[in-house]
Amino acid sequence: MSKLPEEVHPRKAFGWAARDTSGVLSPFKFSRRANGDEDVTFKVHYCGICHSDLHWVKNEWGNSTYPLLPGHEITGIVTEVGSKVTKFKIGDKVGVGGMVGACHTDTCDNCKNDLENYCPKAIQTYCSTDFDGSKTYGGYSDIMVANERYIIRMPDNMPLDAGAPLLCAGITVYSPLKYYGLHNPGMHLGVVGLGGLGHVAVKFAKAFGVKVTVISTSPGKKQEALEGLGADAFLVSRDQAQMEAAICTMDGIIDTVSAEHPLLPLISLVKTHGKIVCVGAPDKPPQLPIFPLLMGRKMVGGSLTGGVKEIQEMIDFAAKHNITADIEVIPMDYINTAMERLSKADVKYRFVIDIANTLTTA
Amino acid sequence: MSKLPEEVHPRKAFGWAARDTSGVLSPFKFSRRANGDEDVTFKVHYCGICHSDLHWVKNEWGNSTYPLLPGHEITGIVTEVGSKVTKFKIGDKVGVGGMVGACHTDTCDNCKNDLENYCPKAIQTYCSTDFDGSKTYGGYSDIMVANERYIIRMPDNMPLDAGAPLLCAGITVYSPLKYYGLHNPGMHLGVVGLGGLGHVAVKFAKAFGVKVTVISTSPGKKQEALEGLGADAFLVSRDQAQMEAAICTMDGIIDTVSAEHPLLPLISLVKTHGKIVCVGAPDKPPQLPIFPLLMGRKMVGGSLTGGVKEIQEMIDFAAKHNITADIEVIPMDYINTAMERLSKADVKYRFVIDIANTLTTA
Repeated sequence: MSKLPEEVHPRKAFGWAARDTSGVLSPFKFSRRANGDEDVTFKVHYCGICHSDLHWVKNEWGNSTYPLLPGHEITGIVTEVGSKVTKFKIGDKVGVGGMVGACHTDTCDNCKNDLENYCPKAIQTYCSTDFDGSKTYGGYSDIMVANERYIIRMPDNMPLDAGAPLLCAGITVYSPLKYYGLHNPGMHLGVVGLGGLGHVAVKFAKAFGVKVTVISTSPGKKQEALEGLGADAFLVSRDQAQMEAAICTMDGIIDTVSAEHPLLPLISLVKTHGKIVCVGAPDKPPQLPIFPLLMGRKMVGGSLTGGVKEIQEMIDFAAKHNITADIEVIPMDYINTAMERLSKADVKYRFVIDIANTLTTA
Repeated sequence: MSKLPEEVHPRKAFGWAARDTSGVLSPFKFSRRANGDEDVTFKVHYCGICHSDLHWVKNEWGNSTYPLLPGHEITGIVTEVGSKVTKFKIGDKVGVGGMVGACHTDTCDNCKNDLENYCPKAIQTYCSTDFDGSKTYGGYSDIMVANERYIIRMPDNMPLDAGAPLLCAGITVYSPLKYYGLHNPGMHLGVVGLGGLGHVAVKFAKAFGVKVTVISTSPGKKQEALEGLGADAFLVSRDQAQMEAAICTMDGIIDTVSAEHPLLPLISLVKTHGKIVCVGAPDKPPQLPIFPLLMGRKMVGGSLTGGVKEIQEMIDFAAKHNITADIEVIPMDYINTAMERLSKADVKYRFVIDIANTLTTA
């Protein structure tokens, strides 16, 4: 690098970051890069708190470096655009999700197929290494700068607060519904876990015309699932009789649960050719009973967010069908309490930080 | 049932059966049903020995009943056809695989879609309960009777001995190659295990125009794989350096190994969207590392033989491409030695019993 950091990153920025594995967040001053020719800068209005933020700030996946400034469900209003930017102008409603870069070389099938999310060189929105060798910082901060390729247009009728979580939670469930062909009208989908991901999965699946059964350990979530979210049925996973009555009735399952849980009951719930799609990753690998897979040509797959093109498609679909996340808006200085509540699943269903009104340097 | 067994099963038959969990086979007299209107009777010429026969005779899957007469890779020549039979005539070369019946009702999606193999009421060729309540007996015997729907036409140029194993081993690998889309020219397929299933998988994949890498614990199989079977490459699964050099290079893997083995190295070998298809079932479920699935939208699926329509398609494809199994033909009274050798994987690659010439009541 010939440029010095202060030349590349001359712009003073401010947010809340974790300094060590305690995961406690506190005010943090840093610099963002100058707005390049292809870059868009926007004032951050809202940022959702994803469950992965919790893992990152505590280094639970083992690759955190500090200071760590989280946040990858970021929305706001454009304040500056580079000379080569063609898709955005000052004043536009925009967002950024989990990525801000990828290799985009001719040899990368993922990038060529609009699947930057699977590019081995993808640059994550935070705690990743940017092209210039600097560290990326997330959306729990006042401003954001990114190449326009990674900027999502938020439709006019999409609120910046309740729309923010769609940039990660939304695409995380939308993409596998489409890729694994579980979005066809009349299909029957199981959604395991009714949290940040699960509640949005129910909404997307219903918008696709799919019959949805929520599968949860908590009988107390039944009313919420049926009346609040419009699910068609509710299964208590610990109720053997209920589970047995539902054997071989579903076309597929989106499993959003990161806590350890057995796969066999889920494999039993799907019909021949049924697909179990995991979007949460338990720390300890579950057992995979092969015989039940064989007997019904069933499969267990994974999915990780989605490419930029599909995120835009998802957000446009959500706007058209009035899908947003159910959120609890919090001030910036509530973040540590929110993280603690999140670790106990005490939120319906996503915290969103009101950055614009509550992040102050004072 | 109003009919007495002797009216329904008046035909004296003879074969070799196991009488208990020792799995030792010995001569056995029994009765087959009379040839019904839609039935085809054929003189059995050859019967392959599938590894599952070994599990069945020893009750290793827990649902064997005795006497148990195995064999579901059966070929022969038609000796009798029912009045309503339209597809076969006396003298035709035919075969029967793993099934002789299914529900064929309007409510069964599997049967409606030519996937009788996944019908919950499928009747297995042996140790299953036939429509009349009687027990089915397999192909280690002199004659076979089945509804014409379950009779496979053996093409003129398909030998009855080396073609027999295709009726189970062949379809077991052919069907997943097609269903999981791993048969497209130019793709790169891994085949784990070079036994009865694996060696046929290599042949089919090569005929599809797919690049094939055999993955095996036995370095000694390399020459055989490359020169004998035409595989393009060979990986010793215990050689860490070889395995690492092959990371993310394959589109999919057909895993034919029933012995316990870890899935993670296989998941690592496939590219983004890679598919691991298990056609063998280890007794103990392996661990499924979810994170690597997520990171590459990969999946692990199963597959169990194929429907009758696809078996016919497979055998016609095999005939066209001169694909047969590599076999060791044995006399009937060698069966117990063959079973013992099979349990040690001491066969290249499939035993086939010469029933017509060596099964004698004397």
